[in-house]
Amino acid sequence: MALRTARNLAYCLNSIRNYSTNGPLVNVTVNEKSGFATVTLQNPPVNSMNLELLTEISHTLQQLEKNKCRGLILTSASNKVFSAGIDIFELHKPNSDRISQTWSFVQEIWIRLYGSAYPTVAVINGHATAGGCLLTLASEYRIMLNKFTIGLNETQVGLTPPTWLIDAMKNTIGGKQTEFALTAGTLFETEEALKIGLVDEVAQSKHDAIEKAEKFLNKFKRIPPHARSITKAKLRGANIQALVRNKDKEVKGYVDFITDPQFQDTVGKYIELVKQKSSK
Amino acid sequence: MALRTARNLAYCLNSIRNYSTNGPLVNVTVNEKSGFATVTLQNPPVNSMNLELLTEISHTLQQLEKNKCRGLILTSASNKVFSAGIDIFELHKPNSDRISQTWSFVQEIWIRLYGSAYPTVAVINGHATAGGCLLTLASEYRIMLNKFTIGLNETQVGLTPPTWLIDAMKNTIGGKQTEFALTAGTLFETEEALKIGLVDEVAQSKHDAIEKAEKFLNKFKRIPPHARSITKAKLRGANIQALVRNKDKEVKGYVDFITDPQFQDTVGKYIELVKQKSSK
Amino acid sequence: MALRTARNLAYCLNSIRNYSTNGPLVNVTVNEKSGFATVTLQNPPVNSMNLELLTEISHTLQQLEKNKCRGLILTSASNKVFSAGIDIFELHKPNSDRISQTWSFVQEIWIRLYGSAYPTVAVINGHATAGGCLLTLASEYRIMLNKFTIGLNETQVGLTPPTWLIDAMKNTIGGKQTEFALTAGTLFETEEALKIGLVDEVAQSKHDAIEKAEKFLNKFKRIPPHARSITKAKLRGANIQALVRNKDKEVKGYVDFITDPQFQDTVGKYIELVKQKSSK
Repeated sequence: MALRTARNLAYCLNSIRNYSTNGPLVNVTVNEKSGFATVTLQNPPVNSMNLELLTEISHTLQQLEKNKCRGLILTSASNKVFSAGIDIFELHKPNSDRISQTWSFVQEIWIRLYGSAYPTVAVINGHATAGGCLLTLASEYRIMLNKFTIGLNETQVGLTPPTWLIDAMKNTIGGKQTEFALTAGTLFETEEALKIGLVDEVAQSKHDAIEKAEKFLNKFKRIPPHARSITKAKLRGANIQALVRNKDKEVKGYVDFITDPQFQDTVGKYIELVKQKSSK
Repeated sequence: MALRTARNLAYCLNSIRNYSTNGPLVNVTVNEKSGFATVTLQNPPVNSMNLELLTEISHTLQQLEKNKCRGLILTSASNKVFSAGIDIFELHKPNSDRISQTWSFVQEIWIRLYGSAYPTVAVINGHATAGGCLLTLASEYRIMLNKFTIGLNETQVGLTPPTWLIDAMKNTIGGKQTEFALTAGTLFETEEALKIGLVDEVAQSKHDAIEKAEKFLNKFKRIPPHARSITKAKLRGANIQALVRNKDKEVKGYVDFITDPQFQDTVGKYIELVKQKSSK
Repeated sequence: MALRTARNLAYCLNSIRNYSTNGPLVNVTVNEKSGFATVTLQNPPVNSMNLELLTEISHTLQQLEKNKCRGLILTSASNKVFSAGIDIFELHKPNSDRISQTWSFVQEIWIRLYGSAYPTVAVINGHATAGGCLLTLASEYRIMLNKFTIGLNETQVGLTPPTWLIDAMKNTIGGKQTEFALTAGTLFETEEALKIGLVDEVAQSKHDAIEKAEKFLNKFKRIPPHARSITKAKLRGANIQALVRNKDKEVKGYVDFITDPQFQDTVGKYIELVKQKSSK
């Protein structure tokens, strides 16, 4: 292990691996040869994005940045769920400070992942709903396994996606498909998602998906990283700048919306419904 | 009738039905069960949008808004023409005040229909040209019958579509197809329109189209209307705000353009051409 | 010839043809009947855009504008290369003034061609890379012959495309495909380019391509040119205005980037590589 660390100085360093041992909810491994980091979400059963998971994802991305990662594969330890998005229990009868922190971390993760200098792939080896889909839209490339669903279904629980997320979806699948998907809160099955361009490739297994992800990342092997990252910034910078400008105001608006009795009523009923379903 | 009205308080109320009896050019019926309003244009022979029809459409939309309509199906009483757009005779040797009012109503209809809180479908059961196509682009979903044509053919008569309409078309069919369509003033046949995404579905009859329209509107049955309308506003708000900011200036520019001798010459020749064709 | 000139007063005049005899790197011919100008780049072997070629292209476009050209077909005298883009030797150990002029001409060509009042087609009868692809994206329609490649491969040599070019590509092939293409510096073969919409039609020969180009231009025969050009300006104006506002700043940034030792190192190595390949 010491030997491997020593060899690996060029890219994703020591600190990441150290970090990964500290974070129980996010596992980070680095392929020494390629310099690609694999970040695996492991918050069973459905990688709910509670404040703890969000904090760990954010710190992980910060470390990858510092250590000049050459590429990121984002995936799930579960073989059923990539991520079910923000933990619904964070939204139910919330403490204002905690919900404010939660949303700040969502924003920060977006800024770091959507704006990362290194290339990024989501290996979607399970359902990716709401915040789970957000993580895949922040990536550059999406590879999905069959028989799962993906989508921003926020409206189904009475929420609305933030404008920067809407803009990223428009950039990915076009204006009209985005409107259809978001107003109805549609969850797409793998094949539909491929058809409308919400995912870029379908894989037969996680192993197959990882291979395809590495193939995508290897495309950039001979591209000067400096030119690549400036180009990416030209493509994605306006989205991030708009979010940065509006960061605090958006957190406030989000807290107000979540703590509003009308929303609390909707989310309360939703939780009841889910409980009834699972008890059957 | 009194019984039906009483049952129907939840959504599209009394006033709409009353209104519909007042407006000879626009018929409004409401399905009590679903709360969906069907708005039928009936200005024979081609639903030319003269000042009178525009006024009625605008008032109808205002009433639907007030009465918290749950969904709108927009269609034509003719089985040949959905709408041929702004009445060419409104543009020929016009009175400045009247043409100014005409364009203000076009803007207002756009603001109300494109920005409606409730979901909207156009059942395009005939040709939809220029302003007729505008009404369908303001809707969320477009279902078209076979063997008709649709498009913004303004350039053919020497006009240019307003920027907010151009932006909505770009959002619907993408930048390049919009440029091709608008610079050439192309009218697309049903199948072509489906192919480029200018319409979303093809129906075999008006009955079939209405069923498909209801199916689209029913998608939103379980979506909290509040979340749906905020999401729609996030998607379409910038377009409407840009129009609102520029409203008066655009009316003035339009009046100047229409009353210019060069345009009057073009439109005069166009009317002659149409007259010659119809007399043959 | 005198007779032909006399007949031709209505559109692309005398001065153009005179100009064409003066410019050794750009040939201009005008079809008297249609008023369409064919502009042929002839800077062998690969139509490298050095300062001389750029100057001539810019002047040609200026003349076409003045003379109210009815349509432009842009093509190459080579049957292998449409254009290989900005001459790499202009970028290697450059004189600041000359590189500044070079980039100013690139901007000016964009403004004139992307914003031209008349319709434009690129007949891509050879490879169109970097600046070569830029010329085709500035056109309204792209017809390409088989077995060539096209793309903005700037990142491969450590450069990044300007934002106005990125925006035009997004308008042509959508946001996601643009990001894929630009971050990897992808060169697409004809069939792939057709599939993603980077070209609009494939031709079997240059003769076939020219016929298709004329067919495209003839679509506008009955469209009042005034309405067409205003519509085009509404579609493309924001792109051009953004460039105009940022013109000088962009030239400065480009000069700084090009003259930076890091870039000079990259470009030096690239030239070595090309030399080694060609000596084999």
